[in-house]
Amino acid sequence: MIIIMKPSASAQEIAEVEQKLHEYGFQTHPIYGEKKTIIGAIGDKSHLSMNQMLLMSGVENVVPIMRPYKLAGKELQKEPSVINVGGVPIGGKSLAIFAGPCAIESQEQLSQIAKQVKAAGANILRGGAFKPRSSPYSFAGLEEEGLKIMKRAGEENGMPICTEVLDTREVDLVAAYADILQIGARNMQNFKLLREVGKHNKPILLKRGLSSTIEEWLMAAEYIMSEGNEQVILCERGIRTFEPSTRNTFDLSAIPVVKELSHLPIIADPSHAAGTRKYVAPLANGAVAAGADGLMIEVHNCPEKALSDGEQSLTPAEFGDVMLHIDPIAKAIGRSL
Amino acid sequence: MIIIMKPSASAQEIAEVEQKLHEYGFQTHPIYGEKKTIIGAIGDKSHLSMNQMLLMSGVENVVPIMRPYKLAGKELQKEPSVINVGGVPIGGKSLAIFAGPCAIESQEQLSQIAKQVKAAGANILRGGAFKPRSSPYSFAGLEEEGLKIMKRAGEENGMPICTEVLDTREVDLVAAYADILQIGARNMQNFKLLREVGKHNKPILLKRGLSSTIEEWLMAAEYIMSEGNEQVILCERGIRTFEPSTRNTFDLSAIPVVKELSHLPIIADPSHAAGTRKYVAPLANGAVAAGADGLMIEVHNCPEKALSDGEQSLTPAEFGDVMLHIDPIAKAIGRSL
Amino acid sequence: MIIIMKPSASAQEIAEVEQKLHEYGFQTHPIYGEKKTIIGAIGDKSHLSMNQMLLMSGVENVVPIMRPYKLAGKELQKEPSVINVGGVPIGGKSLAIFAGPCAIESQEQLSQIAKQVKAAGANILRGGAFKPRSSPYSFAGLEEEGLKIMKRAGEENGMPICTEVLDTREVDLVAAYADILQIGARNMQNFKLLREVGKHNKPILLKRGLSSTIEEWLMAAEYIMSEGNEQVILCERGIRTFEPSTRNTFDLSAIPVVKELSHLPIIADPSHAAGTRKYVAPLANGAVAAGADGLMIEVHNCPEKALSDGEQSLTPAEFGDVMLHIDPIAKAIGRSL
Amino acid sequence: MIIIMKPSASAQEIAEVEQKLHEYGFQTHPIYGEKKTIIGAIGDKSHLSMNQMLLMSGVENVVPIMRPYKLAGKELQKEPSVINVGGVPIGGKSLAIFAGPCAIESQEQLSQIAKQVKAAGANILRGGAFKPRSSPYSFAGLEEEGLKIMKRAGEENGMPICTEVLDTREVDLVAAYADILQIGARNMQNFKLLREVGKHNKPILLKRGLSSTIEEWLMAAEYIMSEGNEQVILCERGIRTFEPSTRNTFDLSAIPVVKELSHLPIIADPSHAAGTRKYVAPLANGAVAAGADGLMIEVHNCPEKALSDGEQSLTPAEFGDVMLHIDPIAKAIGRSL
Repeated sequence: MIIIMKPSASAQEIAEVEQKLHEYGFQTHPIYGEKKTIIGAIGDKSHLSMNQMLLMSGVENVVPIMRPYKLAGKELQKEPSVINVGGVPIGGKSLAIFAGPCAIESQEQLSQIAKQVKAAGANILRGGAFKPRSSPYSFAGLEEEGLKIMKRAGEENGMPICTEVLDTREVDLVAAYADILQIGARNMQNFKLLREVGKHNKPILLKRGLSSTIEEWLMAAEYIMSEGNEQVILCERGIRTFEPSTRNTFDLSAIPVVKELSHLPIIADPSHAAGTRKYVAPLANGAVAAGADGLMIEVHNCPEKALSDGEQSLTPAEFGDVMLHIDPIAKAIGRSL
Repeated sequence: MIIIMKPSASAQEIAEVEQKLHEYGFQTHPIYGEKKTIIGAIGDKSHLSMNQMLLMSGVENVVPIMRPYKLAGKELQKEPSVINVGGVPIGGKSLAIFAGPCAIESQEQLSQIAKQVKAAGANILRGGAFKPRSSPYSFAGLEEEGLKIMKRAGEENGMPICTEVLDTREVDLVAAYADILQIGARNMQNFKLLREVGKHNKPILLKRGLSSTIEEWLMAAEYIMSEGNEQVILCERGIRTFEPSTRNTFDLSAIPVVKELSHLPIIADPSHAAGTRKYVAPLANGAVAAGADGLMIEVHNCPEKALSDGEQSLTPAEFGDVMLHIDPIAKAIGRSL
Repeated sequence: MIIIMKPSASAQEIAEVEQKLHEYGFQTHPIYGEKKTIIGAIGDKSHLSMNQMLLMSGVENVVPIMRPYKLAGKELQKEPSVINVGGVPIGGKSLAIFAGPCAIESQEQLSQIAKQVKAAGANILRGGAFKPRSSPYSFAGLEEEGLKIMKRAGEENGMPICTEVLDTREVDLVAAYADILQIGARNMQNFKLLREVGKHNKPILLKRGLSSTIEEWLMAAEYIMSEGNEQVILCERGIRTFEPSTRNTFDLSAIPVVKELSHLPIIADPSHAAGTRKYVAPLANGAVAAGADGLMIEVHNCPEKALSDGEQSLTPAEFGDVMLHIDPIAKAIGRSL
Repeated sequence: MIIIMKPSASAQEIAEVEQKLHEYGFQTHPIYGEKKTIIGAIGDKSHLSMNQMLLMSGVENVVPIMRPYKLAGKELQKEPSVINVGGVPIGGKSLAIFAGPCAIESQEQLSQIAKQVKAAGANILRGGAFKPRSSPYSFAGLEEEGLKIMKRAGEENGMPICTEVLDTREVDLVAAYADILQIGARNMQNFKLLREVGKHNKPILLKRGLSSTIEEWLMAAEYIMSEGNEQVILCERGIRTFEPSTRNTFDLSAIPVVKELSHLPIIADPSHAAGTRKYVAPLANGAVAAGADGLMIEVHNCPEKALSDGEQSLTPAEFGDVMLHIDPIAKAIGRSL
């Protein structure tokens, strides 16, 4: 770390900062400028935090040199990770297309949607059995019954299935059915849940929190990976800003930023970002053109009767149209469906 | 709800919207303007959501008339709630002052701090036994051992204790020791946890999420209250904005806004908002002057050795100084310590 | 407008609201719900604002029915506008590609860059003669000398030129040289400047303000158009959010939202959004795939010696690479370079 | 500045960075860590920007050591500045209270309001003659006629007057009448206007931009001061966030942060922050308790007939009530009205 001293810092204060750093095994390299002294400190931060240094008399600021994540970064693994889920590679040349309804409503509904999205080009089935709803009075999902429906719809159509888990007590149950466990945006910093899914051997789809920086997002991935499960797929789904035209602001830059900082695959969820079906196609096109490793799109056979998020769901026919445009865009940048 | 039709909406589309509303038992009141038609709809939204109406052909926008929360709002209870915790009223004329360290480190540490903050004017002891940390490699609290230490420190000093619960599996354990269960900012929309604490008969301190609107915050309170536990205390602790000078931006307006919309008490946490001890005193002064029902302030006997958040902790002496200024400010607006 | 009365509003208060609306020539249509009364009001808002109604006793909220912009919206013109600048159509099937350095430094520099970007596919030359700099001590442009250099570089290469105007006193001067006048993000609500450029007959490139909503942006366009100049080209260049990885957060959704609300063309500036050259290519790809009518990209022959914004400038060779990828993406969605 | 090299940086790249720094007269102090090298560079940044260093091969990041403002910071002046305006000191122990209507409407209106706010404790009259309005169709002020009215109302009541200037062409005119020139939030980075008012010898009230960081705000002050006018008064008026309950989010922390970084006085404008009269009193109380040097409050004799911003204006009687509460709060922290 680098300690920047105040212009008014005394020789005594500088000496005390160096002494503290030495106590914790750091080597110090002071640089005396005309107005300020800075101290480069080389050592192991695990027992002396930057914050402790900030509290010392005469210290103006402390700047980190190393990024806080190790497993999620590129230091140990430089090449992009490819995560295989039931024969579908995520993070390679071809795109992973997750599609399905927001909430699972019945076997008939889900089996029909699964068949249709598969035909249009989707390779992973998504759907919610446990739903986080902002009102306690809204439909919260079919729970285990939904998981059973989903497993069957996946098997019928040869598609791995992805569904959200909300509670540490339900991880085992969801993991018994799902091929990919989803951590939703609101739980991105539910650290107990992150640790719990980190103990399973199933790929985790980790959505970005509504107001999470990319660094916090990679630290959430680090939580999962630090428990032994390195199969983390990131999903950009929009962040909260002042702009009211869309439910969230889709952060396109997150795609190249994550690609630079991490080896983990990243997909995009234009449905939740837009919050309305009319903007799903342009956001999906943009995400693929910018290098996303896949898409997650809500599709419902009858959006106007959906029990959750109907307004952002495409019909199977609309989803088919989106896929038709994605194909040449993917090819234009050397990817494929 | 009010349905605003597009300028281009046809008579047929208007008729279909009305018909759908009638199907679900709504009365409709169309108003034909020069350019747009709007339809006032009176009825029970529990089976027909605004989103479903948004999907109908010709509909431009749907505007709610009623607020989404009932128990947390003022419809059923107009007078401010006063929540009593071990003899300390929260929400009345006198202020509730929560003080203590970020993390509980030892019996000696906590007992000493408790004694000092009590002497300076605090009436509730706060401290963390289960800590949410953004890095998986940071100290995460003493867990049950910390709860025991806290209980003893509270008893020694005649102070009710408040501590955070992170996991649905640990609610019973924490509730066995604590007088107030805290839901942290990152868990404000951990709906399973909200429901779980709603089943207990202990007051809940509900921190505002980093990027939660006040409406979402009141809906989180509604979750807890809908399970039967109406003892919810709100805590403003800063929101995430673009400004980097403070860890979060303390939203002073949240205090009068909550007072207008809800009967629940609201306190302020200037320590987490500022993220640095030097701004804690002015934010605490401002919060009390604006009408907060209390404060939550981090105090550590030796901040530079704190295992968590030392940079934002006051020493007991600094806390005493803050209390000395709070007293006349509270009196200036008709409150008391 | 729609007036929503408080649940506690009295019959007297409702009557007074209606009376006031009648005074200003509105027709009123009250709807009496179980808990609240709402009043639909049809009339001309130019003499009675929503804010005045908000102040009346018993009023809870006032909801607009009409959007506040007329000329920038689709009410009067439904088809997309195509703005022709020296033979380059902006807003049609083919893309407008603005390229050039942040600041004009010399004739040699600009003529060389112009030649290179033209060869790579750019059709409009951009460059700054008057530069808004966040420090008063930074290079602020060559001023009129820069305009002369730019004009000559444009003529040599058969490219229309686009440059920023900062001051009402300089509009005539800049308009004497430039083909397109640029209003920068920081001046998006400099209403005097908007009115001034609205009096000229030159196309205006209107950048989105750092924290402007799309509605405010269209209202800024309305300012220009209300003075008689309807040739406004919008430019999305990123908005300010909490995310520090990029200088601004590129708001991809703004492209389809503007396309829905307005007939004006919209281009994207990935250079200012990213603030670093390494993310320019993916953002450019994404913007075109999402339907932008063009791009504005900073190109400098020697970015490491640029007097302004070098870190986000591409070299001419890098710009050529970007164009090679843009071409098939444009074709994939039915556009062309 | 400090240059942080990538973990992969070669000895050659490190040598080239040092060589470039030497060329520009910097002394370099490399520190070789286990994984990264950092280079402390001591010298004059005016000819070599951090951005230029960022572009060099092998460079990961560049960290500034010095703050970018000089005159606005505390380096040259440590003690708080007190700015005297017609006998009213701003920045000293007593509070400056600016009050008056949003827009000046008539002599009668303004003279009456001035008399009333003076009686209630205001010591500076504010009012708008040139109004920035988000719609081109709204009332934009009485212009020079308004300035004359204001001057007279000020003289009648022995109050200095403060009014906004929008356009470089109007600075001389406004300065001929006003005692304090106001730069509005939307013009905070209108650098030409900042330079122009910097050439006059009148105090400047500089409002914070809607999405400006405190550093950008102090840089805007630096612009004015760099032209020779050091009489700058800062005004916090709320920033743009995601929270819709208030027009802006009042950033209370800005008060202590500015007090720490700058010697300039800072006042608070609760009227524009709240956007609604009902929250003005608690925000005013909070701002004073947190250490603001004064307040700017909109007062209108008949808010429901105001031509601009009536919904956030207090009546003279309501303003009197606010003053009654401010008095003991000011005393509680050692200030006075």
